[in-house]
Amino acid sequence: MKQDKISEAVVRRLPTYLQVLYEFERREVVTVSSQELGNELGLNPAQIRKDLAYFGDFGRKGVGYDVLNLIGHIRQILKLNQKINVALVGTGNLGHALCNYNKYSKDNMKIVAVFDENVEKIGKKINHLTVQPMSELKQTVIEQQIRIGIITVPDFAAQAVANQIVEAGVEGILNFAPAVLRVPEHVRVHYADFTKELLSLAFYLESERRNTDGSALD
Amino acid sequence: MKQDKISEAVVRRLPTYLQVLYEFERREVVTVSSQELGNELGLNPAQIRKDLAYFGDFGRKGVGYDVLNLIGHIRQILKLNQKINVALVGTGNLGHALCNYNKYSKDNMKIVAVFDENVEKIGKKINHLTVQPMSELKQTVIEQQIRIGIITVPDFAAQAVANQIVEAGVEGILNFAPAVLRVPEHVRVHYADFTKELLSLAFYLESERRNTDGSALD
Repeated sequence: MKQDKISEAVVRRLPTYLQVLYEFERREVVTVSSQELGNELGLNPAQIRKDLAYFGDFGRKGVGYDVLNLIGHIRQILKLNQKINVALVGTGNLGHALCNYNKYSKDNMKIVAVFDENVEKIGKKINHLTVQPMSELKQTVIEQQIRIGIITVPDFAAQAVANQIVEAGVEGILNFAPAVLRVPEHVRVHYADFTKELLSLAFYLESERRNTDGSALD
Repeated sequence: MKQDKISEAVVRRLPTYLQVLYEFERREVVTVSSQELGNELGLNPAQIRKDLAYFGDFGRKGVGYDVLNLIGHIRQILKLNQKINVALVGTGNLGHALCNYNKYSKDNMKIVAVFDENVEKIGKKINHLTVQPMSELKQTVIEQQIRIGIITVPDFAAQAVANQIVEAGVEGILNFAPAVLRVPEHVRVHYADFTKELLSLAFYLESERRNTDGSALD
Protein backbone atom coordinates (compact mmCIF):
# COMPACT_ATOMS: atom_id res chain seq x y z
CA MET A 1 0.00 0.00 0.00
CA LYS A 2 1.46 3.34 -1.01
CA GLN A 3 0.09 6.06 1.21
CA ASP A 4 0.94 8.83 -1.18
CA LYS A 5 -1.31 7.22 -3.79
CA ILE A 6 -4.42 7.52 -1.63
CA SER A 7 -6.45 10.53 -2.63
CA GLU A 8 -7.11 13.19 -0.03
CA ALA A 9 -10.86 12.80 -0.60
CA VAL A 10 -10.70 9.14 0.48
CA VAL A 11 -8.62 9.93 3.58
CA ARG A 12 -11.12 12.61 4.53
CA ARG A 13 -14.01 10.15 4.23
CA LEU A 14 -12.40 7.51 6.46
CA PRO A 15 -13.18 9.24 9.78
CA THR A 16 -16.83 9.40 8.68
CA TYR A 17 -16.79 5.69 7.88
CA LEU A 18 -15.33 5.10 11.30
CA GLN A 19 -18.03 7.16 12.99
CA VAL A 20 -20.81 5.24 11.24
CA LEU A 21 -19.13 1.92 12.01
CA TYR A 22 -18.90 2.84 15.69
CA GLU A 23 -22.68 3.37 15.57
CA PHE A 24 -23.17 -0.09 14.06
CA GLU A 25 -20.88 -1.48 16.77
CA ARG A 26 -22.99 0.19 19.48
CA ARG A 27 -26.09 -1.41 17.95
CA GLU A 28 -24.24 -4.75 18.04
CA VAL A 29 -24.46 -5.19 14.27
CA VAL A 30 -21.97 -7.85 13.13
CA THR A 31 -21.80 -7.31 9.35
CA VAL A 32 -22.81 -4.42 7.07
CA SER A 33 -23.19 -4.25 3.31
CA SER A 34 -21.88 -1.37 1.22
CA GLN A 35 -25.57 -0.58 0.59
CA GLU A 36 -26.24 -0.13 4.33
CA LEU A 37 -23.09 1.95 4.75
CA GLY A 38 -24.19 4.00 1.75
CA ASN A 39 -27.59 4.68 3.30
CA GLU A 40 -26.00 5.94 6.50
CA LEU A 41 -23.40 8.05 4.73
CA GLY A 42 -25.42 9.39 1.83
CA LEU A 43 -22.85 7.88 -0.53
CA ASN A 44 -23.09 5.54 -3.50
CA PRO A 45 -22.34 1.91 -2.46
CA ALA A 46 -19.99 1.56 -5.45
CA GLN A 47 -18.02 4.55 -4.15
CA ILE A 48 -17.73 2.91 -0.74
CA ARG A 49 -16.50 -0.39 -2.20
CA LYS A 50 -13.97 1.56 -4.26
CA ASP A 51 -12.76 3.58 -1.25
CA LEU A 52 -12.33 0.51 0.93
CA ALA A 53 -10.71 -1.53 -1.83
CA TYR A 54 -7.85 0.99 -1.73
CA PHE A 55 -6.71 -0.67 1.43
CA GLY A 56 -7.26 -4.31 0.54
CA ASP A 57 -10.20 -6.63 0.08
CA PHE A 58 -12.18 -6.39 3.32
CA GLY A 59 -15.66 -7.25 2.07
CA ARG A 60 -17.15 -10.66 1.30
CA LYS A 61 -19.67 -10.99 -1.49
CA GLY A 62 -23.23 -11.45 -0.24
CA VAL A 63 -22.08 -11.10 3.37
CA GLY A 64 -20.64 -7.61 3.48
CA TYR A 65 -18.08 -6.19 5.82
CA ASP A 66 -17.36 -7.45 9.31
CA VAL A 67 -17.95 -4.35 11.44
CA LEU A 68 -15.23 -4.91 14.04
CA ASN A 69 -12.76 -6.02 11.42
CA LEU A 70 -13.40 -2.95 9.30
CA ILE A 71 -13.11 -0.65 12.33
CA GLY A 72 -9.77 -2.25 13.12
CA HIS A 73 -8.52 -1.79 9.56
CA ILE A 74 -9.57 1.85 9.30
CA ARG A 75 -8.08 2.65 12.70
CA GLN A 76 -4.85 1.07 11.52
CA ILE A 77 -4.92 2.99 8.24
CA LEU A 78 -5.48 6.26 10.08
CA LYS A 79 -2.75 5.25 12.55
CA LEU A 80 -5.12 5.60 15.48
CA ASN A 81 -3.60 2.72 17.37
CA GLN A 82 -0.71 4.84 18.46
CA LYS A 83 -0.93 7.62 21.00
CA ILE A 84 -0.78 11.12 19.52
CA ASN A 85 -0.43 14.05 21.90
CA VAL A 86 -2.04 17.37 21.03
CA ALA A 87 -1.48 20.91 22.33
CA LEU A 88 -4.17 23.60 22.16
CA VAL A 89 -3.41 27.32 22.00
CA GLY A 90 -6.19 29.79 22.83
CA THR A 91 -8.51 29.10 25.75
CA GLY A 92 -11.58 31.13 24.78
CA ASN A 93 -15.04 29.59 24.37
CA LEU A 94 -13.95 27.52 21.39
CA GLY A 95 -10.82 26.23 23.13
CA HIS A 96 -12.94 25.25 26.13
CA ALA A 97 -15.45 23.51 23.89
CA LEU A 98 -12.70 21.46 22.24
CA CYS A 99 -11.20 20.45 25.59
CA ASN A 100 -14.62 19.30 26.76
CA TYR A 101 -15.49 17.53 23.54
CA ASN A 102 -12.64 15.06 23.99
CA LYS A 103 -14.51 12.59 21.79
CA TYR A 104 -11.39 11.60 19.96
CA SER A 105 -9.67 10.49 23.15
CA LYS A 106 -11.06 7.08 22.20
CA ASP A 107 -8.76 7.29 19.23
CA ASN A 108 -5.70 7.93 21.39
CA MET A 109 -5.56 11.55 20.36
CA LYS A 110 -5.53 13.67 23.44
CA ILE A 111 -5.12 17.32 24.25
CA VAL A 112 -2.37 17.04 26.86
CA ALA A 113 -1.47 20.73 27.22
CA VAL A 114 -3.25 24.10 26.81
CA PHE A 115 -1.66 27.50 26.30
CA ASP A 116 -2.72 31.12 26.27
CA GLU A 117 -1.00 34.45 25.78
CA ASN A 118 -3.37 36.19 28.18
CA VAL A 119 -1.76 36.40 31.63
CA GLU A 120 -5.19 36.39 33.27
CA LYS A 121 -5.86 32.91 31.90
CA ILE A 122 -2.53 31.34 32.81
CA GLY A 123 -2.77 28.96 35.76
CA LYS A 124 -6.53 28.44 35.36
CA LYS A 125 -7.85 24.88 35.09
CA ILE A 126 -9.72 23.40 32.11
CA ASN A 127 -10.82 19.98 33.25
CA HIS A 128 -7.58 18.40 34.47
CA LEU A 129 -5.27 20.69 32.45
CA THR A 130 -3.65 23.91 33.68
CA VAL A 131 -3.35 26.79 31.20
CA GLN A 132 0.35 27.43 30.52
CA PRO A 133 2.13 30.52 29.18
CA MET A 134 3.37 30.44 25.57
CA SER A 135 6.93 30.66 26.86
CA GLU A 136 6.56 27.06 28.03
CA LEU A 137 5.32 25.77 24.66
CA LYS A 138 8.58 24.48 23.20
CA GLN A 139 9.73 22.72 26.34
CA THR A 140 6.31 21.07 26.79
CA VAL A 141 6.15 19.93 23.16
CA ILE A 142 9.50 18.21 23.55
CA GLU A 143 8.78 16.69 26.96
CA GLN A 144 5.32 15.41 26.07
CA GLN A 145 6.19 14.46 22.48
CA ILE A 146 3.35 16.62 21.14
CA ARG A 147 2.86 16.15 17.39
CA ILE A 148 -0.28 18.22 16.68
CA GLY A 149 -1.18 21.78 17.61
CA ILE A 150 -4.73 23.17 17.62
CA ILE A 151 -5.06 26.92 17.08
CA THR A 152 -8.13 28.59 18.59
CA VAL A 153 -6.96 32.19 18.80
CA PRO A 154 -8.41 35.19 16.91
CA ASP A 155 -7.44 35.41 13.24
CA PHE A 156 -4.98 38.31 13.71
CA ALA A 157 -2.95 36.22 16.19
CA ALA A 158 -3.02 32.92 14.28
CA GLN A 159 0.12 33.28 12.16
CA ALA A 160 2.30 34.27 15.13
CA VAL A 161 1.01 31.29 17.10
CA ALA A 162 1.56 28.99 14.12
CA ASN A 163 5.17 30.18 13.90
CA GLN A 164 5.74 29.32 17.56
CA ILE A 165 4.07 25.93 17.18
CA VAL A 166 6.22 25.10 14.15
CA GLU A 167 9.34 26.33 15.91
CA ALA A 168 8.52 24.01 18.81
CA GLY A 169 8.68 21.04 16.43
CA VAL A 170 4.99 20.18 15.93
CA GLU A 171 4.25 18.31 12.67
CA GLY A 172 0.60 19.13 12.10
CA ILE A 173 -1.74 22.03 12.83
CA LEU A 174 -5.51 22.10 13.06
CA ASN A 175 -6.42 25.75 12.58
CA PHE A 176 -9.79 27.13 13.71
CA ALA A 177 -8.88 30.76 13.09
CA PRO A 178 -10.30 32.14 9.84
CA ALA A 179 -6.83 32.84 8.46
CA VAL A 180 -4.63 31.14 5.87
CA LEU A 181 -1.36 30.08 7.52
CA ARG A 182 2.09 30.04 6.00
CA VAL A 183 4.12 27.12 7.31
CA PRO A 184 7.18 25.15 6.12
CA GLU A 185 6.46 22.29 3.70
CA HIS A 186 7.03 19.53 6.25
CA VAL A 187 4.15 20.82 8.41
CA ARG A 188 0.62 19.86 7.43
CA VAL A 189 -2.23 22.29 8.14
CA HIS A 190 -5.91 21.35 8.22
CA TYR A 191 -8.53 24.06 8.44
CA ALA A 192 -11.62 23.72 10.59
CA ASP A 193 -13.23 27.01 9.71
CA PHE A 194 -16.97 26.53 10.17
CA THR A 195 -17.75 29.71 8.25
CA LYS A 196 -16.76 27.88 5.07
CA GLU A 197 -19.23 25.10 5.71
CA LEU A 198 -21.85 27.74 6.33
CA LEU A 199 -21.06 29.63 3.12
CA SER A 200 -21.08 26.52 0.95
CA LEU A 201 -24.37 25.53 2.59
CA ALA A 202 -25.88 28.80 1.34
CA PHE A 203 -25.01 27.80 -2.21
CA TYR A 204 -27.05 24.63 -1.95
CA LEU A 205 -30.02 26.27 -0.22
CA GLU A 206 -30.42 28.58 -3.11
CA SER A 207 -30.21 25.83 -5.69
CA GLU A 208 -32.76 23.81 -3.72
CA ARG A 209 -35.20 26.66 -3.94
CA ARG A 210 -34.51 27.12 -7.65
CA ASN A 211 -35.27 23.46 -8.19
CA THR A 212 -38.56 23.77 -6.36
CA ASP A 213 -40.17 26.72 -8.05
CA GLY A 214 -38.00 26.86 -11.14
CA SER A 215 -36.84 30.46 -10.77
CA ALA A 216 -34.25 32.51 -8.94
CA LEU A 217 -35.20 34.48 -5.87
CA ASP A 218 -33.19 37.64 -6.39
CA MET B 1 -24.70 28.31 -15.72
CA LYS B 2 -26.17 25.12 -14.37
CA GLN B 3 -25.65 24.97 -10.63
CA ASP B 4 -26.17 21.24 -10.43
CA LYS B 5 -23.21 20.72 -12.77
CA ILE B 6 -20.77 22.36 -10.39
CA SER B 7 -18.86 19.77 -8.41
CA GLU B 8 -19.12 19.84 -4.65
CA ALA B 9 -15.33 20.09 -4.41
CA VAL B 10 -15.38 23.38 -6.34
CA VAL B 11 -18.21 24.83 -4.25
CA ARG B 12 -16.31 23.93 -1.11
CA ARG B 13 -13.21 25.71 -2.37
CA LEU B 14 -15.02 28.96 -3.19
CA PRO B 15 -15.26 30.22 0.43
CA THR B 16 -11.50 29.72 0.70
CA TYR B 17 -10.95 31.71 -2.49
CA LEU B 18 -13.13 34.41 -1.02
CA GLN B 19 -11.15 34.48 2.22
CA VAL B 20 -7.86 34.85 0.38
CA LEU B 21 -9.31 37.52 -1.91
CA TYR B 22 -10.53 39.50 1.13
CA GLU B 23 -6.92 39.44 2.34
CA PHE B 24 -5.70 40.81 -1.00
CA GLU B 25 -8.43 43.47 -0.79
CA ARG B 26 -7.24 44.49 2.69
CA ARG B 27 -3.72 44.83 1.32
CA GLU B 28 -5.19 47.02 -1.47
CA VAL B 29 -3.99 44.64 -4.18
CA VAL B 30 -5.85 45.41 -7.44
CA THR B 31 -5.13 42.32 -9.58
CA VAL B 32 -3.90 38.80 -8.76
CA SER B 33 -2.62 36.04 -11.01
CA SER B 34 -3.68 32.42 -10.66
CA GLN B 35 -0.05 31.81 -9.60
CA GLU B 36 -0.37 34.25 -6.68
CA LEU B 37 -3.72 32.76 -5.67
CA GLY B 38 -2.14 29.32 -5.92
CA ASN B 39 0.70 30.31 -3.60
CA GLU B 40 -1.74 31.55 -0.97
CA LEU B 41 -4.05 28.56 -1.28
CA GLY B 42 -1.52 25.79 -1.74
CA LEU B 43 -3.26 24.87 -5.01
CA ASN B 44 -2.07 24.38 -8.55
CA PRO B 45 -2.68 27.57 -10.64
CA ALA B 46 -4.18 25.41 -13.41
CA GLN B 47 -6.71 24.07 -10.89
CA ILE B 48 -7.65 27.60 -9.90
CA ARG B 49 -8.14 28.71 -13.52
CA LYS B 50 -10.28 25.63 -14.09
CA ASP B 51 -12.38 26.24 -10.97
CA LEU B 52 -13.04 29.86 -11.82
CA ALA B 53 -13.72 29.13 -15.49
CA TYR B 54 -16.75 27.16 -14.31
CA PHE B 55 -18.48 30.43 -13.70
CA GLY B 56 -17.36 32.36 -16.76
CA ASP B 57 -14.17 33.96 -18.01
CA PHE B 58 -13.08 36.35 -15.23
CA GLY B 59 -9.33 36.45 -15.79
CA ARG B 60 -7.33 38.39 -18.37
CA LYS B 61 -4.17 36.89 -19.83
CA GLY B 62 -1.00 38.48 -18.50
CA VAL B 63 -3.01 40.70 -16.15
CA GLY B 64 -4.81 38.21 -13.93
CA TYR B 65 -7.99 38.62 -12.00
CA ASP B 66 -9.41 41.91 -10.79
CA VAL B 67 -9.68 41.34 -7.03
CA LEU B 68 -12.89 43.30 -6.39
CA ASN B 69 -14.53 41.94 -9.51
CA LEU B 70 -13.69 38.34 -8.55
CA ILE B 71 -14.95 38.88 -4.99
CA GLY B 72 -18.22 40.20 -6.42
CA HIS B 73 -18.58 37.20 -8.73
CA ILE B 74 -17.88 34.60 -6.04
CA ARG B 75 -20.23 36.33 -3.59
CA GLN B 76 -22.91 36.22 -6.28
CA ILE B 77 -22.23 32.55 -7.05
CA LEU B 78 -22.47 31.66 -3.36
CA LYS B 79 -25.61 33.84 -3.13
CA LEU B 80 -24.07 35.94 -0.39
CA ASN B 81 -25.71 39.12 -1.58
CA GLN B 82 -28.98 38.15 0.00
CA LYS B 83 -29.67 38.07 3.70
CA ILE B 84 -29.80 34.57 5.20
CA ASN B 85 -31.01 34.21 8.76
CA VAL B 86 -29.60 31.45 10.94
CA ALA B 87 -30.82 29.88 14.19
CA LEU B 88 -28.47 28.16 16.65
CA VAL B 89 -29.55 25.39 19.00
CA GLY B 90 -27.31 24.56 21.98
CA THR B 91 -25.71 27.38 23.97
CA GLY B 92 -22.74 25.59 25.52
CA ASN B 93 -19.15 26.72 25.00
CA LEU B 94 -19.27 25.92 21.30
CA GLY B 95 -22.58 27.74 20.78
CA HIS B 96 -21.16 30.78 22.55
CA ALA B 97 -18.01 30.65 20.45
CA LEU B 98 -20.04 30.61 17.23
CA CYS B 99 -22.19 33.54 18.35
CA ASN B 100 -19.07 35.53 19.14
CA TYR B 101 -17.23 34.56 15.99
CA ASN B 102 -19.82 36.28 13.80
CA LYS B 103 -17.21 36.61 11.06
CA TYR B 104 -19.69 35.65 8.40
CA SER B 105 -22.01 38.54 9.27
CA LYS B 106 -20.10 40.38 6.55
CA ASP B 107 -21.64 37.88 4.21
CA ASN B 108 -25.19 38.64 5.31
CA MET B 109 -25.44 35.39 7.19
CA LYS B 110 -26.43 36.11 10.74
CA ILE B 111 -27.40 34.11 13.77
CA VAL B 112 -30.66 35.87 14.64
CA ALA B 113 -32.01 33.48 17.29
CA VAL B 114 -30.54 31.04 19.84
CA PHE B 115 -32.30 28.15 21.53
CA ASP B 116 -31.62 25.73 24.35
CA GLU B 117 -33.50 22.90 26.02
CA ASN B 118 -31.98 23.65 29.42
CA VAL B 119 -34.39 25.81 31.42
CA GLU B 120 -31.48 27.36 33.33
CA LYS B 121 -30.15 28.85 30.11
CA ILE B 122 -33.42 30.24 28.78
CA GLY B 123 -33.67 34.00 29.10
CA LYS B 124 -29.89 34.48 29.34
CA LYS B 125 -28.20 36.89 26.93
CA ILE B 126 -25.52 35.98 24.38
CA ASN B 127 -24.38 39.28 22.94
CA HIS B 128 -27.63 40.91 21.85
CA LEU B 129 -29.61 37.64 21.60
CA THR B 130 -31.80 36.12 24.31
CA VAL B 131 -31.79 32.31 24.66
CA GLN B 132 -35.27 31.00 23.79
CA PRO B 133 -36.95 27.69 24.68
CA MET B 134 -37.26 25.04 21.94
CA SER B 135 -41.05 25.44 22.09
CA GLU B 136 -40.60 28.81 20.36
CA LEU B 137 -38.45 27.42 17.53
CA LYS B 138 -41.10 26.94 14.86
CA GLN B 139 -42.78 30.28 15.39
CA THR B 140 -39.42 32.09 15.34
CA VAL B 141 -38.27 30.31 12.18
CA ILE B 142 -41.42 31.45 10.41
CA GLU B 143 -41.42 35.02 11.73
CA GLN B 144 -37.72 35.64 11.07
CA GLN B 145 -37.59 33.63 7.83
CA ILE B 146 -34.75 31.49 9.18
CA ARG B 147 -33.30 29.18 6.51
CA ILE B 148 -30.32 27.58 8.26
CA GLY B 149 -30.05 25.86 11.63
CA ILE B 150 -26.78 25.27 13.48
CA ILE B 151 -26.71 22.33 15.88
CA THR B 152 -24.28 22.58 18.80
CA VAL B 153 -25.82 20.11 21.23
CA PRO B 154 -24.27 16.84 22.48
CA ASP B 155 -24.34 13.96 19.99
CA PHE B 156 -27.10 12.02 21.76
CA ALA B 157 -29.47 15.01 21.42
CA ALA B 158 -28.59 15.95 17.84
CA GLN B 159 -31.15 13.85 15.93
CA ALA B 160 -34.08 15.06 18.06
CA VAL B 161 -33.01 18.67 17.54
CA ALA B 162 -32.57 18.08 13.80
CA ASN B 163 -36.12 16.72 13.64
CA GLN B 164 -37.48 19.86 15.29
CA ILE B 165 -35.44 22.12 13.02
CA VAL B 166 -36.67 20.29 9.92
CA GLU B 167 -40.23 20.36 11.20
CA ALA B 168 -39.92 24.14 11.66
CA GLY B 169 -39.19 24.48 7.94
CA VAL B 170 -35.44 25.12 7.89
CA GLU B 171 -33.73 24.14 4.60
CA GLY B 172 -30.15 23.57 5.68
CA ILE B 173 -28.36 22.34 8.78
CA LEU B 174 -24.79 22.84 9.90
CA ASN B 175 -24.17 20.07 12.41
CA PHE B 176 -21.34 20.29 14.94
CA ALA B 177 -22.43 17.24 16.91
CA PRO B 178 -20.40 14.13 16.10
CA ALA B 179 -23.48 12.27 14.84
CA VAL B 180 -24.80 11.38 11.39
CA LEU B 181 -28.26 12.95 10.95
CA ARG B 182 -31.22 11.51 9.08
CA VAL B 183 -33.20 14.25 7.36
CA PRO B 184 -35.62 14.44 4.43
CA GLU B 185 -34.07 14.78 0.98
CA HIS B 186 -34.95 18.46 0.55
CA VAL B 187 -32.85 19.39 3.60
CA ARG B 188 -29.10 19.74 3.13
CA VAL B 189 -26.77 18.86 6.01
CA HIS B 190 -23.15 19.95 6.27
CA TYR B 191 -20.96 18.52 8.99
CA ALA B 192 -18.49 20.62 10.93
CA ASP B 193 -17.04 17.90 13.07
CA PHE B 194 -13.51 18.94 13.93
CA THR B 195 -12.62 15.46 15.13
CA LYS B 196 -12.59 14.35 11.49
CA GLU B 197 -10.08 16.99 10.54
CA LEU B 198 -7.99 15.87 13.47
CA LEU B 199 -8.18 12.19 12.51
CA SER B 200 -7.29 12.79 8.87
CA LEU B 201 -4.42 14.99 10.05
CA ALA B 202 -3.02 11.99 11.94
CA PHE B 203 -2.91 10.05 8.68
CA TYR B 204 -0.66 12.64 7.09
CA LEU B 205 1.60 13.03 10.11
CA GLU B 206 2.41 9.40 9.94
CA SER B 207 3.14 9.47 6.21
CA GLU B 208 5.35 12.54 6.70
CA ARG B 209 7.48 10.64 9.18
CA ARG B 210 7.66 7.63 6.89
CA ASN B 211 8.94 9.88 4.14
CA THR B 212 11.62 11.30 6.39
CA ASP B 213 13.28 8.23 7.77
CA GLY B 214 11.99 5.72 5.25
CA SER B 215 10.41 3.35 7.73
CA ALA B 216 7.23 2.91 9.73
CA LEU B 217 7.16 3.83 13.40
CA ASP B 218 5.10 1.03 14.79
